[in-house]
Amino acid sequence: MKIAVLPGDGIGTEIVAEAVKVLQALDLKFEMESALVGGAAYDAHGHPLPDATLKLARESDAILFGAVGDWKYDKLDRPLRPEQAILGLRKNLGLFANFRPAICYAELVGASSLKPELVSGLDILIIRELTGDIYFGQPRGRRVSPDGNFPGAEEAFDTMRYTRPEIERIGHVAFQAARKRGKRVTSVDKANVLETFQLWKDVMTEVGKEYPDVALDHMYVDNAAMQLVKAPKKFDVVVTGNMFGDILSDAAAMLTGSIGMLPSASLNASNQGLYEPSHGSAPDIAGKGVANPLATILSAAMMLRFSLNQPSAADRIESAVQSVLACGLRTPDIWSEGTNKVGTREMGDAVVAAM
Amino acid sequence: MKIAVLPGDGIGTEIVAEAVKVLQALDLKFEMESALVGGAAYDAHGHPLPDATLKLARESDAILFGAVGDWKYDKLDRPLRPEQAILGLRKNLGLFANFRPAICYAELVGASSLKPELVSGLDILIIRELTGDIYFGQPRGRRVSPDGNFPGAEEAFDTMRYTRPEIERIGHVAFQAARKRGKRVTSVDKANVLETFQLWKDVMTEVGKEYPDVALDHMYVDNAAMQLVKAPKKFDVVVTGNMFGDILSDAAAMLTGSIGMLPSASLNASNQGLYEPSHGSAPDIAGKGVANPLATILSAAMMLRFSLNQPSAADRIESAVQSVLACGLRTPDIWSEGTNKVGTREMGDAVVAAM
Ligand SMILES: CC(C)[C@H](C(=O)O)[C@@H](O)C(=O)O
Ligand SMILES: CC(C)[C@H](C(=O)O)[C@@H](O)C(=O)O
Repeated sequence: MKIAVLPGDGIGTEIVAEAVKVLQALDLKFEMESALVGGAAYDAHGHPLPDATLKLARESDAILFGAVGDWKYDKLDRPLRPEQAILGLRKNLGLFANFRPAICYAELVGASSLKPELVSGLDILIIRELTGDIYFGQPRGRRVSPDGNFPGAEEAFDTMRYTRPEIERIGHVAFQAARKRGKRVTSVDKANVLETFQLWKDVMTEVGKEYPDVALDHMYVDNAAMQLVKAPKKFDVVVTGNMFGDILSDAAAMLTGSIGMLPSASLNASNQGLYEPSHGSAPDIAGKGVANPLATILSAAMMLRFSLNQPSAADRIESAVQSVLACGLRTPDIWSEGTNKVGTREMGDAVVAAM
Repeated sequence: MKIAVLPGDGIGTEIVAEAVKVLQALDLKFEMESALVGGAAYDAHGHPLPDATLKLARESDAILFGAVGDWKYDKLDRPLRPEQAILGLRKNLGLFANFRPAICYAELVGASSLKPELVSGLDILIIRELTGDIYFGQPRGRRVSPDGNFPGAEEAFDTMRYTRPEIERIGHVAFQAARKRGKRVTSVDKANVLETFQLWKDVMTEVGKEYPDVALDHMYVDNAAMQLVKAPKKFDVVVTGNMFGDILSDAAAMLTGSIGMLPSASLNASNQGLYEPSHGSAPDIAGKGVANPLATILSAAMMLRFSLNQPSAADRIESAVQSVLACGLRTPDIWSEGTNKVGTREMGDAVVAAM
């Protein structure tokens, strides 16, 4: 079992170090190899996703990823910016299925912006398609506008597109996930306006027929954004495209109040996967030893379950995280009166101890 | 002053009737003419936006619009569905500037999903571009996929596009609006992924230089969705494209807990405008006399201010709405223990009485 360890920028190095410590505390044999990615890779090699890093990722069963990005790279040309590394990994490894659970931990209900009764017990799973849509559609660029409201003016454009097999495969992922949970899938589209999402809706309906035990409903993306705010617990599995999924999964994560706790997984057809926290690189607190490592540690647990076929090791980590929370340990992002404030390293050590 | 009155479907007729009653109670001379739109127009004339309706809208200074849509039209071909009427009006009249205030009324703080301290006093203005972006971009359609992940497969596609002058004009609208308020503009983009929104960001930055008294910041759409949930009061004016604006304006409206109170305006370059509530046609409660007419009444006030140059009449209506709320009158959607539940008509009458 080979794991590529890509800490990246900002708090990435600190939080990944704790997840590595937790993995090492298991009685399992992994080969772990680290490489630079994002801004750190640009600084050292002039590119956010150097060939050697991509090669390592390809050869590994799973990638443990920290976070990329820092304001200081904002002025670079787009192909050299840190976030191109994550887009490049998704595309090159075909990581089309992104799992973004939005779970509200009982101990952290108070940290949510929402009223406690609306989020306590919240457990939804957003499944975002990750290698298609307007993120990668060609053609795109700048040109002289050929028609429209201001023909002849300077224009920029992008192409949204989905093929039937791309929708089918993410549909199957969603229905299979729902089977192991609440048996409900909400497919989010904008079929009233977009051709792409009319096809999306049609194909989801067809795929749904193969899963008569799972209830399917369709919701427009604007309504989905409203329902997430109004009554998030009504959802079970939400499946949507790359662009809408980017927005809705972040909104859902923030609803829980504990985005510092939320892992994510991005898988390809052979269950090779990239695992990363749902939060970003937080350059403002980098190097201070205060970042919450739990989302990354829980991402390592997802990695054990989805890519490395070690479900009991995953369970061990997840229970250990539950128990450090139950003991009242909190990093500053989730701290509240009456709990015990700890740093990144202490939190990682506590998880290891609880295992 | 000519007003086209387009009640539409569902609760549209009931709520527009109350707004008309309020307008008639002013000592102003309007010519008001009604026409069918949406599903109602399809039923009568086979098209959601009949020529006569479009002609009336064109010839009027302002349009008072109810809502369109009902599940029973879901099976129609897209060009015949009710929502095409609203897209057709926006496009044909060039209504590029959509104003969506998200205000949390002091009396209704408790109705929000969010904790009271996060929404009390909330007053943000979302300005959404309404005639460009992926809503109208050509080409779009279905085809055999020419390349990408599954060449040769069935594919659907749409085109996102913005020209410089389209971005400039909505930018000026946003900065001018911010000047009359908190003097801050947040431009929401996805410049890290999309060519269209890199141009958007560049042009907003340029337009911003003409407004040195207004602070401009840029935010990615996924982050904007998170910040709206986390700390909505940090925003003043938010300006964004048609697609992102569709999602964010609905999320922001729902945050207030009183979407039944929120008006909207869609203006063109000559201040001709379409005024409609932010909520939809709610077919489930149509005809029951329980719908909240206040969003439509407040939309009529916006109409007086923006298109008909009658700011003091607008003030009169807005104060009357404030006072019926202060008196404890509530339609069921905003009712809470200790307040006085009233129907659509009673609410309209109360506003007229308060004027
Ligand atoms: C960094 C960015 C390109 C990326 C995305 O938009 O997919 C991020 O927001 C995410 O969700 O992983
Ligand atoms: C009905 C639909 C086409 C419309 C839109 O997407 O613009 C609606 O959601 C709105 O926001 O007015």
